[in-house]
Amino acid sequence: MSADPATTGSPLGGLLDGPPTVITAGVELFEHTLRDQGVETIAVDWRPPVADVASELARIAADPRTAAANQTAVERITSAEPRWVGVKQAREAVGIESGQFLHAGPPITWERASGPMRGALIGAMLYEGMADTPEEAERRGQRGELELAPCHSAGAVGPMAGVVSPSMPMFEIENGAFGNTAYCTLNEGLGKVLRYGAYAPEVGERLTWMQQVLGPAMDAGVRRLGSMDLRAIIQQAMQMGDELHNRNRAASALFVREMVPPLLEAGLDSRELADVVRFINGNEHFFLNLGMPAAKSALDPARDIPGSTVLVAMARNGTDFGVQASGTGDRWFTAPASVPDGLYLGDYGPDDANPDIGDSTITETGGMGGFVMAAAPAIVRFVGGQASDALDATRSMYRIAVGEHPHYQIPILEFRGSPIGIDATRVVRTGTVPAVNTGIAGKVAGTGQVGAGLVTPPIEVFVQAVRALAEAAQVPDA
Amino acid sequence: MSADPATTGSPLGGLLDGPPTVITAGVELFEHTLRDQGVETIAVDWRPPVADVASELARIAADPRTAAANQTAVERITSAEPRWVGVKQAREAVGIESGQFLHAGPPITWERASGPMRGALIGAMLYEGMADTPEEAERRGQRGELELAPCHSAGAVGPMAGVVSPSMPMFEIENGAFGNTAYCTLNEGLGKVLRYGAYAPEVGERLTWMQQVLGPAMDAGVRRLGSMDLRAIIQQAMQMGDELHNRNRAASALFVREMVPPLLEAGLDSRELADVVRFINGNEHFFLNLGMPAAKSALDPARDIPGSTVLVAMARNGTDFGVQASGTGDRWFTAPASVPDGLYLGDYGPDDANPDIGDSTITETGGMGGFVMAAAPAIVRFVGGQASDALDATRSMYRIAVGEHPHYQIPILEFRGSPIGIDATRVVRTGTVPAVNTGIAGKVAGTGQVGAGLVTPPIEVFVQAVRALAEAAQVPDA
Repeated sequence: MSADPATTGSPLGGLLDGPPTVITAGVELFEHTLRDQGVETIAVDWRPPVADVASELARIAADPRTAAANQTAVERITSAEPRWVGVKQAREAVGIESGQFLHAGPPITWERASGPMRGALIGAMLYEGMADTPEEAERRGQRGELELAPCHSAGAVGPMAGVVSPSMPMFEIENGAFGNTAYCTLNEGLGKVLRYGAYAPEVGERLTWMQQVLGPAMDAGVRRLGSMDLRAIIQQAMQMGDELHNRNRAASALFVREMVPPLLEAGLDSRELADVVRFINGNEHFFLNLGMPAAKSALDPARDIPGSTVLVAMARNGTDFGVQASGTGDRWFTAPASVPDGLYLGDYGPDDANPDIGDSTITETGGMGGFVMAAAPAIVRFVGGQASDALDATRSMYRIAVGEHPHYQIPILEFRGSPIGIDATRVVRTGTVPAVNTGIAGKVAGTGQVGAGLVTPPIEVFVQAVRALAEAAQVPDA
Repeated sequence: MSADPATTGSPLGGLLDGPPTVITAGVELFEHTLRDQGVETIAVDWRPPVADVASELARIAADPRTAAANQTAVERITSAEPRWVGVKQAREAVGIESGQFLHAGPPITWERASGPMRGALIGAMLYEGMADTPEEAERRGQRGELELAPCHSAGAVGPMAGVVSPSMPMFEIENGAFGNTAYCTLNEGLGKVLRYGAYAPEVGERLTWMQQVLGPAMDAGVRRLGSMDLRAIIQQAMQMGDELHNRNRAASALFVREMVPPLLEAGLDSRELADVVRFINGNEHFFLNLGMPAAKSALDPARDIPGSTVLVAMARNGTDFGVQASGTGDRWFTAPASVPDGLYLGDYGPDDANPDIGDSTITETGGMGGFVMAAAPAIVRFVGGQASDALDATRSMYRIAVGEHPHYQIPILEFRGSPIGIDATRVVRTGTVPAVNTGIAGKVAGTGQVGAGLVTPPIEVFVQAVRALAEAAQVPDA
């Protein structure tokens, strides 16, 4: 009914010939009013930028380095070749000594630490023989006898509380493209485990078995294998319904499949080997502790690119949510962590939940997790929602990502690459915060996991990052 | 703009108040003409029923047993509990002796057999020591010295040529809900393999290793395990991107994962065990030969339900495509098999392709394969097409299926159950034939696999089934 602009030659292209279709953004009242009047509307999810950073955003946009710096960041991240090469004791891997502990998220003190963080530190003290009872361990914590540092400051990442103590075995991941390394402890399984803040005797017994049996077996296996190509496993798993944060079922199965022949040939006791395989089989999150350092090893080379607004870390310590941006070095931008919204185990409910905790948001930062939920629709049975929500989550992440990952593809989106390179300015400009799915820890020390769900990162951290990036921007004289 | 029927009270509900939207079906010319006139059209995929079976369809519809019989058929199929319980030699499993061979599809003679079927029979004769050269084997075939019978007639299924000879090891699957069993040989991998009609020396060597090492190892492992719940593996794999016909990557990985501990504990030589695990790891189709008999064991209890129009088998021998329906016993309805349309390996092309071959359509008959491609969008990289085609294929199968499988769910379709119980009358009425994906064998004996793709079953077999079902229908006097 509208005239064809190609034939009429009108610069308005027949725009005003037919009834209007209105694209509405923001306040839904406008859309509803128009719809009630029979006008066709298309609602788009758009919000005005956080008002008081308009000049900061303009300043960053005026820095001629920004676009190229962000491209460089994404190129470095996507050209990573993360390979698992060995298992080392934390003492050697991240250089911590007795009394020193690493933890998830930005820096934290015992005083400000949440229940699960304290619980994990108590458990680690018991495991290291620094205390005989939880009460004694707690007193040592209160007295400031622990030296705490973020995993990220030591080239490591840790899920949930992310507590690392000197005797723990750690996966060593090497980024073949850049030569840098990253470390992570081995995954303990679900339920009463240290990373969720539990410290019952079974927790320590398991950690000891991991130190004495699991760690050495894994090391012997991978050394016989030479190395394991983690990018290839992540790539395959993403075509097998995993998003690699809270769904690692395919990746864990592929991991076991690849490890068994070298484990058999490494000459280990076959009963012990059967225990090892059963332990890994019983834990569909086993691969998380390989996927996380794979992401860290890919992101670290994108640090310190002057002018880049790409995030290189997002992490939570159970009290604060923090981010680090490429153009602002090791500086953390933090704000209070929110409580996740999700599905609870057994009788637990939202009142039992601790605020968001863990370095596992390194998966989202690296184009996995919440960013590729479209590849893993079955995850909604674990974190809540509908399969369509999983598709929507991924689609909306393209708004805040600089690029698309050439290796991590999403079949249902016609093999589109995963959204990669979170741009702090786009987060602030669109009001779209990163999609994050997560496990939920009980807020009382010693509880363990209480559920899993989705969490909304605080917009403030991105605003702070934008302010700092604007300060560091180099704007040519007008 | 159109009036609200709730307020006007018009029985036409405002139907004629606005401009028309036309739903078009069948000939696209109508749709295109209307669209060219600026009329909104919605095309639906509908075709008139095959004209000359209108009275047969009416007769079946008038049989008061039909609906309940089809419900019974679907209830039996979906309540199956397929479990792998052991490995037996074909001699014992399906009762064949020297000179007797099973094959895929409906009955066939040497004279009418295609290249890959003859190639597989030649390879099986060499393997059994019935001939020293391919030429001698071929002469024995021509002289009618082989006794041939369909796998289905002996409680078995076989992928591609599906040739079974007495010395081959076979998986034994037990349907725990009904006590019936089904058998299938072990999967050889890809490339030059017997089931694709290859018979080079490496084919026989591999079959001998499978008989001497792989089969006994699998038997020792499963006996230590007790049994393996195949329904649980299929269910999980369908949430991990497998459709269980041409994509068995997750199922094969889950299989290995579950088998390793019992294999370790069965006291096998660890070098040999490493070979076994490497062989299975190197073949992402390994689980196909467990999924197929799982489907057969689920479908067999739905045989011989008087009045049921549900299909209990679809199978091809490389020359003919055949189906069996519940209400017509063991009778085969056949028509010439078509050549699949798909992607070719290396320099091969459509001219190298043999017509459709194999019992593997038992997966589609059992609510897997082409029927659940929506769960496995990555399969389009193997069989061709777009991810959206995979979704469309599954959606269209609900038109011809009696029910939805309560255990086999498709996450991206909000966990809808897979379409199950193919109703021959719906196929004929809607003109929608079952969606089938398949491997493509070279048409020259000895070639092996040349590609993979989709194939259109001939509508004639469903028409024949409907005619026979109509003859068997019991219509009360009017």
